[in-house]
Amino acid sequence: MPSYTAPTKDMQFLLHDVLKITEAEIPGYDELERDFTGAILEEAGKISSAVLQPLNTIGDTEGCTLENGVVRTPTGFKAAFEQVKEGGWPGLDMPEEYGGQNMPYVLGTAVGEMFSASNQAFTMYQGLTHGAASAILAHGSDEQKNTYLPKMVACDWTGTMNLTEPHCGTDLGLMRTKAEPQADGSFKITGQKIFISAGEHDMSDNIIHLVLAKITGGPEGIKGVSLFIVPKFMVNEDGSLGARNGVACGNLEEKMGIHGNSTCVMNYDGATGYLLGQEHKGMRAMFTMMNEARLGVGMQGLAQADAAYQNAVIYAKDRLQGRAVTGAENPDGPADPLIVHPDIRRSLMDQKSFTEGARAFILWGATMIDRAHRGGDADADGLISLLTPVIKGFLTDKGYDMTVQAQQIYGGHGYIEEWGMSQYTRDARIAMIYEGANGVQALDLVGRKLAQDGGKHVMAFFDMVKSYIKENAGQDDAFDRDFIEPLKAASKDLQAAGMYFMQNGMKNPNHALAGSNDFMHMFGHVCLGLMWARMAKTSADALAAGTGDATFHETKLATGRYYMARQLPATAMHLTRIQTGADTVMALDAANF
Amino acid sequence: MPSYTAPTKDMQFLLHDVLKITEAEIPGYDELERDFTGAILEEAGKISSAVLQPLNTIGDTEGCTLENGVVRTPTGFKAAFEQVKEGGWPGLDMPEEYGGQNMPYVLGTAVGEMFSASNQAFTMYQGLTHGAASAILAHGSDEQKNTYLPKMVACDWTGTMNLTEPHCGTDLGLMRTKAEPQADGSFKITGQKIFISAGEHDMSDNIIHLVLAKITGGPEGIKGVSLFIVPKFMVNEDGSLGARNGVACGNLEEKMGIHGNSTCVMNYDGATGYLLGQEHKGMRAMFTMMNEARLGVGMQGLAQADAAYQNAVIYAKDRLQGRAVTGAENPDGPADPLIVHPDIRRSLMDQKSFTEGARAFILWGATMIDRAHRGGDADADGLISLLTPVIKGFLTDKGYDMTVQAQQIYGGHGYIEEWGMSQYTRDARIAMIYEGANGVQALDLVGRKLAQDGGKHVMAFFDMVKSYIKENAGQDDAFDRDFIEPLKAASKDLQAAGMYFMQNGMKNPNHALAGSNDFMHMFGHVCLGLMWARMAKTSADALAAGTGDATFHETKLATGRYYMARQLPATAMHLTRIQTGADTVMALDAANF
Repeated sequence: MPSYTAPTKDMQFLLHDVLKITEAEIPGYDELERDFTGAILEEAGKISSAVLQPLNTIGDTEGCTLENGVVRTPTGFKAAFEQVKEGGWPGLDMPEEYGGQNMPYVLGTAVGEMFSASNQAFTMYQGLTHGAASAILAHGSDEQKNTYLPKMVACDWTGTMNLTEPHCGTDLGLMRTKAEPQADGSFKITGQKIFISAGEHDMSDNIIHLVLAKITGGPEGIKGVSLFIVPKFMVNEDGSLGARNGVACGNLEEKMGIHGNSTCVMNYDGATGYLLGQEHKGMRAMFTMMNEARLGVGMQGLAQADAAYQNAVIYAKDRLQGRAVTGAENPDGPADPLIVHPDIRRSLMDQKSFTEGARAFILWGATMIDRAHRGGDADADGLISLLTPVIKGFLTDKGYDMTVQAQQIYGGHGYIEEWGMSQYTRDARIAMIYEGANGVQALDLVGRKLAQDGGKHVMAFFDMVKSYIKENAGQDDAFDRDFIEPLKAASKDLQAAGMYFMQNGMKNPNHALAGSNDFMHMFGHVCLGLMWARMAKTSADALAAGTGDATFHETKLATGRYYMARQLPATAMHLTRIQTGADTVMALDAANF
Repeated sequence: MPSYTAPTKDMQFLLHDVLKITEAEIPGYDELERDFTGAILEEAGKISSAVLQPLNTIGDTEGCTLENGVVRTPTGFKAAFEQVKEGGWPGLDMPEEYGGQNMPYVLGTAVGEMFSASNQAFTMYQGLTHGAASAILAHGSDEQKNTYLPKMVACDWTGTMNLTEPHCGTDLGLMRTKAEPQADGSFKITGQKIFISAGEHDMSDNIIHLVLAKITGGPEGIKGVSLFIVPKFMVNEDGSLGARNGVACGNLEEKMGIHGNSTCVMNYDGATGYLLGQEHKGMRAMFTMMNEARLGVGMQGLAQADAAYQNAVIYAKDRLQGRAVTGAENPDGPADPLIVHPDIRRSLMDQKSFTEGARAFILWGATMIDRAHRGGDADADGLISLLTPVIKGFLTDKGYDMTVQAQQIYGGHGYIEEWGMSQYTRDARIAMIYEGANGVQALDLVGRKLAQDGGKHVMAFFDMVKSYIKENAGQDDAFDRDFIEPLKAASKDLQAAGMYFMQNGMKNPNHALAGSNDFMHMFGHVCLGLMWARMAKTSADALAAGTGDATFHETKLATGRYYMARQLPATAMHLTRIQTGADTVMALDAANF
């Protein structure tokens, strides 16, 4: 069975040595001293490894069951959920007035990676509650906040997001779920929603569904969509639970993975709902949560990749097969461990350099969210808004690839369920799809975010890269050669791609959109390249100063060199593809596929 | 539920217009007239679509069950197996003297693609029988051939290959299964084999296991391995079945996919076995089948990709979501079909251009096998031996990627099992692992095949590309620009990589092996680029002559242009990676992963 070790040391390095959070001048960050974050991460790591990880295989094997409308979660899930609640983890970054601990989002993200890596299906129950609570926090009336948030922050009540219908996912303007206004100001919600994660289960007293629906008589299409709070059990004025509402789970989906999470068909049959935010502004209410939710999904890509990588390393050191071509390294044994073989190394370095680079990118992104939300910094908000589709799309595409590579190291043992490596790929696969399929992320990036506010944010991104290069180049030849030059080249590729879009996208937008997937990937590489340069510089400085753990810093530098040499040059290929435009992509009549 | 349409038209185009098989001067090919192959392919297509395809989901859902040592295959498998046998399909390319039809391997490969695409798990039962029968054909005594082959060619008896043990897969020298010589010339086989596909099931009267084992007292390691025939039921002198032999299925593996195939732990407990071929030369006997078996697995990568692609196209044309950015294409409907969107096109073109290129490569490779085996052509044998790891490794890596892309087009519907797209990825995953994991293929290519016979075969490959370019360049500017120039550039990259290995691999073989995976992929791209150039030229000539189906040929050209513009340039990235050598790959101590 797989194991999981929380990467607390790497996280501490990132938070304190690279991002220097206590000096970041973001409200709340001054409290995040090294010992304090260390204690929290250690505790989160313990519950991840000892409680959540052992349930990961059980959740996959048992899955959820639906009987007479009741969904049963896998053995042990409810007890573990109680432990997580008792530890106060669900409210870590929620406001104190609703029972939370008011920690910054960056800390919630670090903890979230551990929880997700040890048990993604389980962690989604609290993740969706967090998302629904954030929506109520942002758009709810005081009464709504007081009614729902204390229970949701504690996870006594869990939450869901109801967007998709059988005939529409991305294009929510096609939605059919109706909301009939009632005399008392409430609405009767009728319709069917599908793919509702945690839609029904046995781990909480109540479930608060956030449901997108169209108020009868409102505008057509996406402009007529509103957001509603639909509790599973009605809530009495004194906060106690009342009658069952007209919402029920009609079916559980059989899925490729995340079996431990109940993915429900939800039927709304005149269910009582309460408008959240303004009429017909449901999409706006959804979008305020999007950046956080998508960053959270990007984090899942990294989390599954790291968990799979950790196990692949253990196997590669343990499994004896063949001899090193440069001479036996385990001469007294019957064979050498897999890890002596260059192509196994290549695969492990792909995984390691991705995972550590992605972790830096995610935590840096979380500081941007804190800077925007806690500090009211509009530039940070614009920058993270630009990068959100990159974080979501690139990290989940690559994260999935890495789970496949980790599985591959096991040979045939990777294909049988007994070893648990198949689950990592099956679970990681969903992150490329939900919260907006990665093709939609690429479209969002190229079709919307690039030009947002007159291209201001993408220019700010390039300025950030240029400033970094200017400040750090020319001090050390090896650093220039290994980090600065590759970063420069990749950044130049990215700029050339943007230029191609500007010059050709105006006359035919397909010239830009046909390259959207490549652009998202090259953008991701440049971001990870920048992160690796920053990490490497930090480690090089520490080594020069003789501070910290020399082996850790040398390993960090070597891993960074690998990324810059072997991964970052992918930008040139993406640029080549982009510059061929839309002609070959759009050449065929639909009938000729 | 997914559907499958056999690509008979494309196969006929390849066999007759591109490969011109009747003019190929390969023994047996003169019979392969267009009408004749057309009739066979149509029949094979019918049974694939109508019989095998409907059982694909059933096989995945039900899987196999083991009870009291008896393995039950999914509902309908046995009846379908009878239909396949009645059609004479298992013996299509087997010798007439054992009941086969003596057709060339190229035709068996085309039919195999259809069977595999419609139901990989099912088709493996006959595929393994084919492999075992081929081994007996190549290495068996006349008595062994007469005893086993007529039954195996008819699939009345099926076959298996037993190599892997719990502690050894690739490194078979570590094997522990023992063979004790008996006074009557037979052996008593004792040991455990794992991952034995079709090891036990209810579809045939007998199962003929080919088992690698070490004769007691023989040489250590791989030089002491011999191959044995171990029947499930002993065969009496009159050909009737006798007592049960000492071999039994100890367990069925739970796998990520190919649930319809029984993957068994096989326990040999003093089972009677008969030496096949020479003592201690078991590996040589295995290797004579390797090229065919690995080409067959490469074909599975293509087959799953094509089946998944076909369904993705149907969904992309059917599912309405969003509007074309260049103006509504379905203005009377609520939205446009997915296929209007450039990134959906990009994905479908990736799939289509891979699948058709891979099919050309596989069928061309099959003609090389026929040229070698039927025509005794040592050069063809050397060339296909060089390219075998490319066919196996590249086509299964890419084939898997394509099933993931096809699944992605379905959004959330791709993740739930109901739509069947998850099965394509789960089934395709195994092809990257079995018959030698793809890392081992890359090692075989770079560590063994490149230098084989003094590098003669790789030089022959480059000569083939150069001759093609020389014969076809300079006749048409558009063809030069779209096909010749990209092929030249990619081939130059491949040569530069080979040169890097020669110059650096001598002083440190890791400099070559660290680039083995990249080299295998760039080699695959060059092969598909060559195939696309050949197909495009054929279609361009047909259009110029006004012969054939103009739409088919125009589509072929457009698809080829896509591959050359968007896929082939990946060679430059692989070359860049290769030229960074082993330093960053091997930098870390194993302890620091």
